[in-house]
Amino acid sequence: MVKKYKGIMIEKKKEILTSLENLGAKIYGQMDNGFFPWIEMPSRSTENIYYDPQIRQFILGDKRVRRSARNIRHVKPFTQLVWTAYFSHELTSQRKTSTLRDVYYSAQAYEMKFKDQQESNSIITDLETVLGFSREDFNIFPEERSAVFGDLTIEYTVPGYEGKTLNLTSHPDGVMIGPALTSSELVKTTADKVIAIEKGGLFTRFIEENVHKRFNAILVLTAGQAPRATRQFIKRLNSELKLPVYIFTDGDPWGMHIATVIISGSANAAHLRELTTPDAKWGGVWATDIINYKLPTDPLEEVDIKRLHELQRDPRYKDPLWQREIKTFLRIKKKCELESFSRYGLAYVVNEYLPRRLSELKG
Amino acid sequence: MVKKYKGIMIEKKKEILTSLENLGAKIYGQMDNGFFPWIEMPSRSTENIYYDPQIRQFILGDKRVRRSARNIRHVKPFTQLVWTAYFSHELTSQRKTSTLRDVYYSAQAYEMKFKDQQESNSIITDLETVLGFSREDFNIFPEERSAVFGDLTIEYTVPGYEGKTLNLTSHPDGVMIGPALTSSELVKTTADKVIAIEKGGLFTRFIEENVHKRFNAILVLTAGQAPRATRQFIKRLNSELKLPVYIFTDGDPWGMHIATVIISGSANAAHLRELTTPDAKWGGVWATDIINYKLPTDPLEEVDIKRLHELQRDPRYKDPLWQREIKTFLRIKKKCELESFSRYGLAYVVNEYLPRRLSELKG
Repeated sequence: MVKKYKGIMIEKKKEILTSLENLGAKIYGQMDNGFFPWIEMPSRSTENIYYDPQIRQFILGDKRVRRSARNIRHVKPFTQLVWTAYFSHELTSQRKTSTLRDVYYSAQAYEMKFKDQQESNSIITDLETVLGFSREDFNIFPEERSAVFGDLTIEYTVPGYEGKTLNLTSHPDGVMIGPALTSSELVKTTADKVIAIEKGGLFTRFIEENVHKRFNAILVLTAGQAPRATRQFIKRLNSELKLPVYIFTDGDPWGMHIATVIISGSANAAHLRELTTPDAKWGGVWATDIINYKLPTDPLEEVDIKRLHELQRDPRYKDPLWQREIKTFLRIKKKCELESFSRYGLAYVVNEYLPRRLSELKG
Repeated sequence: MVKKYKGIMIEKKKEILTSLENLGAKIYGQMDNGFFPWIEMPSRSTENIYYDPQIRQFILGDKRVRRSARNIRHVKPFTQLVWTAYFSHELTSQRKTSTLRDVYYSAQAYEMKFKDQQESNSIITDLETVLGFSREDFNIFPEERSAVFGDLTIEYTVPGYEGKTLNLTSHPDGVMIGPALTSSELVKTTADKVIAIEKGGLFTRFIEENVHKRFNAILVLTAGQAPRATRQFIKRLNSELKLPVYIFTDGDPWGMHIATVIISGSANAAHLRELTTPDAKWGGVWATDIINYKLPTDPLEEVDIKRLHELQRDPRYKDPLWQREIKTFLRIKKKCELESFSRYGLAYVVNEYLPRRLSELKG
């Protein structure tokens, strides 16, 4: 029984509040000293986004931008950014959560004008860039929910649940990954790996077939492209609990990219470090599995082929395994789904495929 | 503290197994007596679907169809139907679940041919029609998952969890509605109503604002159009626990239809009775709320207006409230989202709108 509890999340919330307060204090300070207030941050424009092979994700370069209240063109975005910081501070200190959509509407309560939600989303990303924290850290969450299941005990930090624990095998449909789970402390686990799965049907199959026990695994349902809160949670399982992460998706370019975004993130989150798990591995379905396991397939469509050519040139796909699989997809011109293993019976994917693949990836 | 436990789900599973076995026995009997085996069921063709104002949902009429192994054109669908019944019996007796997609692939393990998934889905619907049970009852589940939160204690019936209970306030992100929850017994509750909510952000807000305690409510997240398992669960809350159901959606034709499908079902589930909650009520956002609360709006688009005209003629929308709201939407040519109440602060929807609407609907 590994004990890991460190009070990490409570510390983090304090840090976030402090950094928001420091931002406010800085602006007050500038004004007290007779300056037009300004905020500086790394530029997020395309020419300042680089792939860093060392840390294996996109990062921002050295170019910086400054929003100053002195510049008439900056007054609006500067004010919006300050309001967003204020509102995030309200949320975080009152321990309430919000969605991106809600922030847009809430602004109207303060007579703060955003042209549309795109504009408020972009200002929220500015705030992430300024603070170096992701919006989930200051309590702005997306709509989508995914799930987790396995022997991991968490301790809540949300109001009304402080100190309460939950073991993530409590509910055999999986425990929803929302604001409360994301902000929990990870207390203890007997698991020695994480298995992330793209699809709900397979996630349920894995639970029914006791994958969590038989493979000592924490199971994560990404439900398609993993929401950011889920990517952050996977990263925590990897970095706090030191668990290796294996990702299983459909065998097509879209499945590959679900894995890649968990591993290496996306260009538009180049300003953040908390969302990527560079050591996570894509477990399949590989194009070579389609051949070796004689899986039922569908033909690649025009749009799949176009996407594969894009991935071939993408720096996140430089690894020989990725390149081999992309080439194989293009050669066989076929794709397949995770469920296609059911062709050999419902339990085949768990009894045969999974143990073989896990030992290959370990080796 | 209301105690409601009745062992309903365990009884139901027995009924389903029996009805599948009876179907098999009937076919054997036909063959033993020297007949080509056949299966009869109500026709699901459009001209046999009627809206029944008494039970307030679509139902099938008296026309019946017969699939006979004697008719060369019937041999394939007849065999597929028998295999599907066999496979459903395997699933149910082994207490494993499957998705629609999985059934399609699993057929290949038995050298049972389906042209595509549409064909296997349609045969599964045939089996529902023959048995009068929904596919979730014989363990075929959709991909989508939604959630529930509130003071309700359930007792699991799935393998490994028999007799274990969970209170649905255990996880403050909400408890996922999957196969395990759906097949649970409803043991006890102090709630006196159900509030169903279309969107994850609002569901979380309601939990954070203690709606479950302040309004004695079980909260259900439909996550857009409610999956069938969720509609069935809402029906159970209403029929087994006698709780009134209130549904809150965006203020547009699509939100209205989310409510209507929970209340009156859809034409393609006319062969089932377990999915509708005719006494459930649509709580808003109403078109008249847009006016009365001066909510932020978006203009109706062409496709919204077209949809409203369709709804106006739909028998499920005959009620004066629906007709009034459809007319108001068409007159003001605006729509709005649930989150738009945040315009008056994050807690406004809970502190002001919700209590007012609930008392209006009760009166």
